[in-house]
Amino acid sequence: MSDPLFDRLTLIGIGLIGSSIALAARQHGLAKEIVVSTRSEATLRRAEELNLGDSYYLDAAQAVEGADLVILCVPVGANEGVARWIAPALKQGAILTDVGSTKGSVVRQVQPHVPAGVHFIPGHPIAGTEHSGPDAGFASLFENRWCILTPAADIDPAATEKLSAFWRACGSNVDTMDADHHDLVLAIVSHLPHIIAYNIVGTAADLETVTSSEVIKYSASGFRDFTRLAASDPTMWRDICLSNKDAILEMLARFSEDLSALQRAIRWGDGDGLFDLFTRTRGIRRSIIEAGQETDAPDFGRHQSKS
Amino acid sequence: MSDPLFDRLTLIGIGLIGSSIALAARQHGLAKEIVVSTRSEATLRRAEELNLGDSYYLDAAQAVEGADLVILCVPVGANEGVARWIAPALKQGAILTDVGSTKGSVVRQVQPHVPAGVHFIPGHPIAGTEHSGPDAGFASLFENRWCILTPAADIDPAATEKLSAFWRACGSNVDTMDADHHDLVLAIVSHLPHIIAYNIVGTAADLETVTSSEVIKYSASGFRDFTRLAASDPTMWRDICLSNKDAILEMLARFSEDLSALQRAIRWGDGDGLFDLFTRTRGIRRSIIEAGQETDAPDFGRHQSKS
Repeated sequence: MSDPLFDRLTLIGIGLIGSSIALAARQHGLAKEIVVSTRSEATLRRAEELNLGDSYYLDAAQAVEGADLVILCVPVGANEGVARWIAPALKQGAILTDVGSTKGSVVRQVQPHVPAGVHFIPGHPIAGTEHSGPDAGFASLFENRWCILTPAADIDPAATEKLSAFWRACGSNVDTMDADHHDLVLAIVSHLPHIIAYNIVGTAADLETVTSSEVIKYSASGFRDFTRLAASDPTMWRDICLSNKDAILEMLARFSEDLSALQRAIRWGDGDGLFDLFTRTRGIRRSIIEAGQETDAPDFGRHQSKS
Repeated sequence: MSDPLFDRLTLIGIGLIGSSIALAARQHGLAKEIVVSTRSEATLRRAEELNLGDSYYLDAAQAVEGADLVILCVPVGANEGVARWIAPALKQGAILTDVGSTKGSVVRQVQPHVPAGVHFIPGHPIAGTEHSGPDAGFASLFENRWCILTPAADIDPAATEKLSAFWRACGSNVDTMDADHHDLVLAIVSHLPHIIAYNIVGTAADLETVTSSEVIKYSASGFRDFTRLAASDPTMWRDICLSNKDAILEMLARFSEDLSALQRAIRWGDGDGLFDLFTRTRGIRRSIIEAGQETDAPDFGRHQSKS
């Protein structure tokens, strides 16, 4: 194994993403020392039981002292408070990054607090499961997934390259782009799907003509795929909706417009229009499978595991 | 192995469902003889290459001669034509059933053609994958899945019980209910999810600000789950939309109403309202997993297969 990229890595927040980074960094030898901090005493104790780090602090400012890489792994709504807290304690030359699903808001909340001489490079590893908390993490979470970095124009390219190397060592492919463009892309590939999933599960729960137990029993016919997304962490998703409001509303408006047209085609029995749309969408899945972002196993391989 | 339930089983249509029934019936010894019929010569030849049956006919009327169980495995829109074609050739005492995802329309299309002395019991095995065609079938498709039968009030209970025994032998749990209630239940658990999935994939494909290659690259963040549903057979889904129009439009209206409320909560920054909805939906997934209709593996176990 080569020399560690960083001497001291500090993780603020130790949920699914934080704990997965801890395990991946340890497995690949990316830091000499891993420092874990979280504001909940119970979670911090649990992280220690799981042996996720080398030292543990409730005080985030203490935790970042001497760290050359600090990763904020808290819900996006909590970034500003943490940034204000740790700013005076950050080491000169340190790299500060985050893992939030929105980037424009993180820049607005964190950037004003970053001291001169600290390299703030917002980041977003596009990986996750529907589970949360320090027990949910696993070292391979980032393998073959994309990680997007959105460095401002004046950031030292060497710092960006060092952070990219960290993510590549965790198994990720790294892309850089503008924070605003990131937010638009994620609004369609992630935020809208989750919002739609939450919405349909809510609609189903409120019906009077169909009971919840029927919905549960017959969910294998399509509904259950949505429930996975709708079981994601509520705090995280509330914060995403509030932080990426404009891009989400833009995508929601387009989605609703398209849905109205589809509804009209159903009402008027426009079979050709329906067939065209239902054919066109097949190609996109093929491309996703070819791009290595998905398995080709039928039903995600759920059946295979049983036979 | 006990005596076969049926002497001659005829399958009209040999796509994903038909071929899976053929394989399951063979594996569990449910019929002495399996007859396969489909209108496409190429598909019939492929079924023969796959050894799915004992004999093969392009002529559906010839195929049902002497059969004591006939299962229509064609898209729901094709049922009426097939029913008219085979009606004169059906054996007295035979059971006639189908596998369509809508039941009211099948009753309307098929019932008028059913000769006296033939037991017509509409059916719907709630199982499937996004793949189609005779190569897509596998014997375990129906295991631990529900099959709904919707016999009319005047149907001989012995016939319903015999058909139920067939599905139970394929590994399914069997429920009976009213055809109209079936259509309402399926509209929410299956038809709406597929329509929404088709719609969002269509919306994403039409954006100017985000490229298709970006959508494909970053799809792991939620979008790709929808693409699985949106890759389902277009003919089948066109027919479902046309055949279950009223129930689908009813569910779509409720969904859109709820989505407007959610959109409003995002626009006005109603964090508490968002958090409440996002919390409520978690419980439904837990129930689905407890009911054995889903795996608890994070991300459907997609990650596990790699580590």
